Amino acid sequence: MKRLKLTLAYDGTNFCGWQFQPKQRSVQGELEKAVARVTGSLVRAHGSGRTDSGVHARGQVAHLDLPEKWTSVPWQKSLNSLLPDDVTVLDTCYVSDDFHSRFSAREKRYTYSLWLENSFFLPWRRKYVWKCGPLDFDALDRGMNLFLGEHDFAAFQNMGTEVNSTVRTILDFKRRPGETEHEIILEVSGTGFLKQMVRNMVGCLVKIGRGKEEPDFVRSLLQMKDRTLAPATAPARGLYLDHVFYGEADCGGPDAGRKQSHKNGHD
Amino acid sequence: MKRLKLTLAYDGTNFCGWQFQPKQRSVQGELEKAVARVTGSLVRAHGSGRTDSGVHARGQVAHLDLPEKWTSVPWQKSLNSLLPDDVTVLDTCYVSDDFHSRFSAREKRYTYSLWLENSFFLPWRRKYVWKCGPLDFDALDRGMNLFLGEHDFAAFQNMGTEVNSTVRTILDFKRRPGETEHEIILEVSGTGFLKQMVRNMVGCLVKIGRGKEEPDFVRSLLQMKDRTLAPATAPARGLYLDHVFYGEADCGGPDAGRKQSHKNGHD
Repeated sequence: MKRLKLTLAYDGTNFCGWQFQPKQRSVQGELEKAVARVTGSLVRAHGSGRTDSGVHARGQVAHLDLPEKWTSVPWQKSLNSLLPDDVTVLDTCYVSDDFHSRFSAREKRYTYSLWLENSFFLPWRRKYVWKCGPLDFDALDRGMNLFLGEHDFAAFQNMGTEVNSTVRTILDFKRRPGETEHEIILEVSGTGFLKQMVRNMVGCLVKIGRGKEEPDFVRSLLQMKDRTLAPATAPARGLYLDHVFYGEADCGGPDAGRKQSHKNGHD
Repeated sequence: MKRLKLTLAYDGTNFCGWQFQPKQRSVQGELEKAVARVTGSLVRAHGSGRTDSGVHARGQVAHLDLPEKWTSVPWQKSLNSLLPDDVTVLDTCYVSDDFHSRFSAREKRYTYSLWLENSFFLPWRRKYVWKCGPLDFDALDRGMNLFLGEHDFAAFQNMGTEVNSTVRTILDFKRRPGETEHEIILEVSGTGFLKQMVRNMVGCLVKIGRGKEEPDFVRSLLQMKDRTLAPATAPARGLYLDHVFYGEADCGGPDAGRKQSHKNGHD
């Protein structure tokens, strides 16, 4: 057996999410189907974490354990010829048996794209942004800053997954230019994220950016730990799983092991 | 009657092109349908030129003549609430009666996006680029340079539209960074373009960029004026009508009347 690490990009629009679900179209399911067309049997794909329905990825990571006889297959090329148009293999490499796409992850980075125009909406951006209209950048920046560091994110967790602790650490949260001049990107890195935590943080920030709440609202929510007080979850379509960071031995490229802290999260 | 100038963006993927065709889905048809839902009757929309099936636009221009009673309608807002998701009104303004979206145009700018990776293809870029693989940038640049100026573009015109002359002037042709790091954009401006002329020039340039022809191939084709000697037309999906330039009085923004030369082309 050899363990293959895969880096994947996908358009989440027509997927029920990363994880296999019967009678639905999942990224994991499509990947396993493509692998099975080569090997003739099911090889389980393990992802770094689930992404929800409609969430995209520029750098999802998965691993597979391949019987020795299949290790000479040019996997990237083969899978990209078999996979549907909305998922692609960006990179592959063999890793040691103690690499695990989920448990070896040290840090994850997500991006969220916000559309700032009220008067029009570019057709080719509709599936990849949340249309918010104009936002106060200064207020956004101050709100993002208050998320930095270790906090109990109970107020930013949606129901559906049992976790031991709702404490997580945000390493970086910043605004950068968007893919078109009518957008911005909010980019967040952390050691781990609770269910829909990024979308809940963005929902809160947009409320602040619209002037409906002060930046200090972030601090109150973190202190009160009550999901029912927090704003609605931002739509899935603006969110990308951008990068998963591992140790340097995990062949993830120059920034693979950027942080030393340990992941303890859901996705 | 007042003449309304509209600037439009659209995703050409699911259109038969700009021009109305019975039983097909055209941008002109959708626009006229949306206008008719306000006015109750057909108001003809005149475009700056046709775009082919699958060709996109960031700055197509059209005009409509509106009866006086409809001139207080907030047209951008109304149309954007009525139009389908793949077309949007970027801007509107009233212009004088001697403005004509097609005949007043002084210059047009197109972009063409080329995908340079062989090993993967980002899902969200598939409908907007031509997947070419690696290209020799220096050869491309030299090829583009040879198109500059006034030439007989007979070798770069596809059949289907009668024109008096196949002489056109290319004002600018340059390479710039693409929308992702895996792409480049070729940007071309001219006083007018023959049918599928941009896509034919790009087809020729890609052949040069792949090393299948020398840059001087451009000069030979221009001299021989024989379409059958030129490479295949590049796919529609990489092409955007980017901007149409008019005189300064035509409310087209700061660069509306960039050139003094006169349009004499098809689109």
